[in-house]
Amino acid sequence: MLAVVLAAAHGFLAGVVRPDGEVLAAVHGVADFTTPAGALELLDRALAEAGVTHQEVELAVLGLPGPSLFARTPGPDPLGGSHLRRFRSWDGRPAADVVGDFLDRPVFCENDANLAALGEAVYGDVAGLHTVLHISLTHGTGAGLVIGGRLHRGGSRLAGEVGHLHVDDAGQLCECGARGCFWQTTSIPALLSELATAHGRTFTVSDLDAAAASGELEIMRALRGFGRSLGRRVADFVVFLDPQAIVVDSALGAASDVIADGIREAVDQYTPPMMAASVKISSGSLGASAHLKGAAALVRTEHLFEVSQLGPRVQASQA
Amino acid sequence: MLAVVLAAAHGFLAGVVRPDGEVLAAVHGVADFTTPAGALELLDRALAEAGVTHQEVELAVLGLPGPSLFARTPGPDPLGGSHLRRFRSWDGRPAADVVGDFLDRPVFCENDANLAALGEAVYGDVAGLHTVLHISLTHGTGAGLVIGGRLHRGGSRLAGEVGHLHVDDAGQLCECGARGCFWQTTSIPALLSELATAHGRTFTVSDLDAAAASGELEIMRALRGFGRSLGRRVADFVVFLDPQAIVVDSALGAASDVIADGIREAVDQYTPPMMAASVKISSGSLGASAHLKGAAALVRTEHLFEVSQLGPRVQASQA
Amino acid sequence: MLAVVLAAAHGFLAGVVRPDGEVLAAVHGVADFTTPAGALELLDRALAEAGVTHQEVELAVLGLPGPSLFARTPGPDPLGGSHLRRFRSWDGRPAADVVGDFLDRPVFCENDANLAALGEAVYGDVAGLHTVLHISLTHGTGAGLVIGGRLHRGGSRLAGEVGHLHVDDAGQLCECGARGCFWQTTSIPALLSELATAHGRTFTVSDLDAAAASGELEIMRALRGFGRSLGRRVADFVVFLDPQAIVVDSALGAASDVIADGIREAVDQYTPPMMAASVKISSGSLGASAHLKGAAALVRTEHLFEVSQLGPRVQASQA
Amino acid sequence: MLAVVLAAAHGFLAGVVRPDGEVLAAVHGVADFTTPAGALELLDRALAEAGVTHQEVELAVLGLPGPSLFARTPGPDPLGGSHLRRFRSWDGRPAADVVGDFLDRPVFCENDANLAALGEAVYGDVAGLHTVLHISLTHGTGAGLVIGGRLHRGGSRLAGEVGHLHVDDAGQLCECGARGCFWQTTSIPALLSELATAHGRTFTVSDLDAAAASGELEIMRALRGFGRSLGRRVADFVVFLDPQAIVVDSALGAASDVIADGIREAVDQYTPPMMAASVKISSGSLGASAHLKGAAALVRTEHLFEVSQLGPRVQASQA
Repeated sequence: MLAVVLAAAHGFLAGVVRPDGEVLAAVHGVADFTTPAGALELLDRALAEAGVTHQEVELAVLGLPGPSLFARTPGPDPLGGSHLRRFRSWDGRPAADVVGDFLDRPVFCENDANLAALGEAVYGDVAGLHTVLHISLTHGTGAGLVIGGRLHRGGSRLAGEVGHLHVDDAGQLCECGARGCFWQTTSIPALLSELATAHGRTFTVSDLDAAAASGELEIMRALRGFGRSLGRRVADFVVFLDPQAIVVDSALGAASDVIADGIREAVDQYTPPMMAASVKISSGSLGASAHLKGAAALVRTEHLFEVSQLGPRVQASQA
Repeated sequence: MLAVVLAAAHGFLAGVVRPDGEVLAAVHGVADFTTPAGALELLDRALAEAGVTHQEVELAVLGLPGPSLFARTPGPDPLGGSHLRRFRSWDGRPAADVVGDFLDRPVFCENDANLAALGEAVYGDVAGLHTVLHISLTHGTGAGLVIGGRLHRGGSRLAGEVGHLHVDDAGQLCECGARGCFWQTTSIPALLSELATAHGRTFTVSDLDAAAASGELEIMRALRGFGRSLGRRVADFVVFLDPQAIVVDSALGAASDVIADGIREAVDQYTPPMMAASVKISSGSLGASAHLKGAAALVRTEHLFEVSQLGPRVQASQA
Repeated sequence: MLAVVLAAAHGFLAGVVRPDGEVLAAVHGVADFTTPAGALELLDRALAEAGVTHQEVELAVLGLPGPSLFARTPGPDPLGGSHLRRFRSWDGRPAADVVGDFLDRPVFCENDANLAALGEAVYGDVAGLHTVLHISLTHGTGAGLVIGGRLHRGGSRLAGEVGHLHVDDAGQLCECGARGCFWQTTSIPALLSELATAHGRTFTVSDLDAAAASGELEIMRALRGFGRSLGRRVADFVVFLDPQAIVVDSALGAASDVIADGIREAVDQYTPPMMAASVKISSGSLGASAHLKGAAALVRTEHLFEVSQLGPRVQASQA
Repeated sequence: MLAVVLAAAHGFLAGVVRPDGEVLAAVHGVADFTTPAGALELLDRALAEAGVTHQEVELAVLGLPGPSLFARTPGPDPLGGSHLRRFRSWDGRPAADVVGDFLDRPVFCENDANLAALGEAVYGDVAGLHTVLHISLTHGTGAGLVIGGRLHRGGSRLAGEVGHLHVDDAGQLCECGARGCFWQTTSIPALLSELATAHGRTFTVSDLDAAAASGELEIMRALRGFGRSLGRRVADFVVFLDPQAIVVDSALGAASDVIADGIREAVDQYTPPMMAASVKISSGSLGASAHLKGAAALVRTEHLFEVSQLGPRVQASQA
């Protein structure tokens, strides 16, 4: 059995997953990064719900924002003093160490958007396609790229950080040091806030789902515009990579389909017709379990059972 | 021994290359695609210069513009009636058939920009780096992408067609069907023509090389601006792929270095600093022999000797 | 007596001027730079008209576009192969050598816009003001800067090259190597061409003068807009230098006043009020003789009679 | 000996300097402009630290924000009711009178950014270069301009007020009366505040220095972007003045170097190559003592000992 913990600004997600990708339990919790207690208690709740003991856990996968720490030689976190550190360092210790000590099992870290991408690319509708870009929208604007069935992480482990595509020379200063990054204007939180202003009431992700499901025209237009905005940038990716699939975070429900339509529209407009015609653009098929299934996919595609047998907890001192 | 023929708008290149990448002969000729005679005569001149008989040729590699035809199931050329057809169909027959019949050997086709990219990625300074984008400028604005030591061709075999990145909604109609494609404003021919207008005299690729070598300020500024323009688009590629190297077509000589500096400047400005810091940006190290060495690299990375033993000329009826 | 020759794209101007600034003769001619004959014949016509012999000429001043060659140690023209060379090199020889040999007198070179600026700053309405920027519009968009009664030439002898202020990242390539220089969109020839298109008839500089003099509203609006466009850039100069005067090329006649009004409007809008209030903005008072009087002013402010007595023709081998 | 007092929003600086530029003492204090007591006590502390008596002080130099008061005929402060008045009028009396009475010596006033510029131009690395623009960043965004070894003050004594370059037609109203002035978006305080927002922690000038010194990528990117933003405007200055040097306030430590690199990048992009090539762009070499050394440079370049002998305290009743 695999234990999975996801740490992100919106909160924790703990889950238990079978090596074949079946999700046995998934529990959400409020994020508190000053102490690991919350995350560990959440993990125990997930294990209890799944009826799985600590001993039955074979290894753990940790989903963390920021540069991928997968298979990284132990050393200082490349993030330095960035604000993302707090997700990766709990109570002053690397998150992997905290979880590894708790379970006494090897722990493998991966970027959260990468886990979702790998989940969809291995277990979703697009399984088997060669080059898949999965766009995560639930926790910021990010992406994961799967090429030939394996994650493409990049030289600085940041491949797919589409939130930091450059948009506006005179934009707001970003924590990455640049100005006018894409996430500042194109993200679900930014969209929700704009909708709230325009309509004079609060909006949640669920409202987007519901509005798209019931065909509320104004919201669908806004979602489609959001998709076109994403699609304008995805179009350039298509020209460079000529991928087989673009998948949109399906945790947004029906709203994901509308966003995918917007991306399609822009890709059709901004890429050569042969490329536009050969790329499938759709919302994901795994909903909120993409990350958890992605953990199982990571174990499979990176042969982690073999790795962990060679040297248990070899990965535990990362971060 | 490998026989290589490159067919492009500017003319033919025929060469003879050893399987280890050593170039034994390289002969240029005027392009005439109405009859195969010119290309075949050129090939014979290259073989004579190298002292290699038809019998000693083990297989041939054909570099052609347009979608890669490598390992493609025989069938109609996906190009349809495009103006690129003339490079790929000589005297009404697929170029691969013409060359295959002439040599009685298996012929493998590859996109010309892909060959140059593979040459630099396997035999150049960046050999061993995981993700390499090579930008071809000599024959239009294109690129080849090598990931993990192999060519990334894409779903429609058009990966790296950076000349068709979208630039201008109100731009000129392109033969690809879109409007305002990148190559229309950012290509060496466009730059040469702009320089000619600005300075009231003609400019050639050699003039760019000479001007950069002697530090002629006005020309270097124009080249650096050209590089920045490329770099603005490459920056987005960097954010998506987080590559280890960006290599500029070294057939432009000293001008390639200045263009690489411009790309670096834009990448530093438009990508997150960790990504900018981890990517090497330079001009290639193989000069005009990148394509020929790329043919040897293709044989090596795609195990073509094994493939051709399984079924000689299995590839010959493409295009 | 001073002999003065001005060489510019629009043609030659030869004149004879007294050291106190009085213009004795001024003759215009068609520009032909393949042979010096035209310029020298023009000079003889001016001398004849003024009743001045070769022997009575004490020194000559040459106004040439491009970097100022004043008091430059003989050596290669810094212009290199630029298209401006043709104005400075007649029949393959430096213009200063040609004129020096013809008159057997010392020749001093100065940038043409600098001569006009110095003329207005020393002999015009603004004489005595500390910092004066004079904007030349007749031959391209340029400027000369006089600080404390002397020309400010700058480290590369190009101070005041306002035609090369940057305007447009995506603009046309300029012979200077940059893109989107100011002169490309803001120059009298560009304005005349735009007026011709808008009104369906040809326009000359004289038409601008006449239209401004008779209060033709459409033309005055266009001239004022042209002035505002200049003024937007001049405003930044005002903030950096806090000058006492901005003077507009008075060779445009009444049109100069309208342009000056446009500059005033922009300076009032775009600079701190104290600065705007302390700068005089007006058209020049010397009309077409600004350059010729500027030659006399150069002799006076640079003490050229003393210099030439120290070593006659010491300056002649420039360019 | 020279007594120097600098009054600025961030506090007082009192120093004692030898006429040859050697700084004997420098004492910082909290700014309180409601009473002169604080400034005078600080001055006495500096004199005590230097071991210099009131009698040994030959003259005093006062650095004040706002229009230069140097050698100004006594009369009302041109500032009127501006908020800068409080720095220049202590307890209702002109600061020069207060200090002059206290020391019974002549007092010369100069703008604070001008003093720093003169210090660097006379005693710094760029000494001897003809035209030097020094950009002050520690107390707001300002600049001083030294031409031919002397301060260029301008017609309203505001030359170099780069903080008031116009940026944004729809910007915030500035106390100068204009809208969208440069300092509102481009100043160190604005940058510190943006960094605080982006990173969720406070930032000081020392943090910038430390981050640049240790190569913290996100902060260096932000500093370089800040430099580019300055450089875009400095580029226009370069085209007008063709200066020999642009110097960045070295009180920011290592951060100054990164900002200078950003300015260089923009100047290379936005000015003609010959101009870009002939201007030195660097951080200053005097650190926090630029203003104090600038006071000695003022005495030297304006021959103040001679002036003060002609009529002691002739300058004291300014402001």
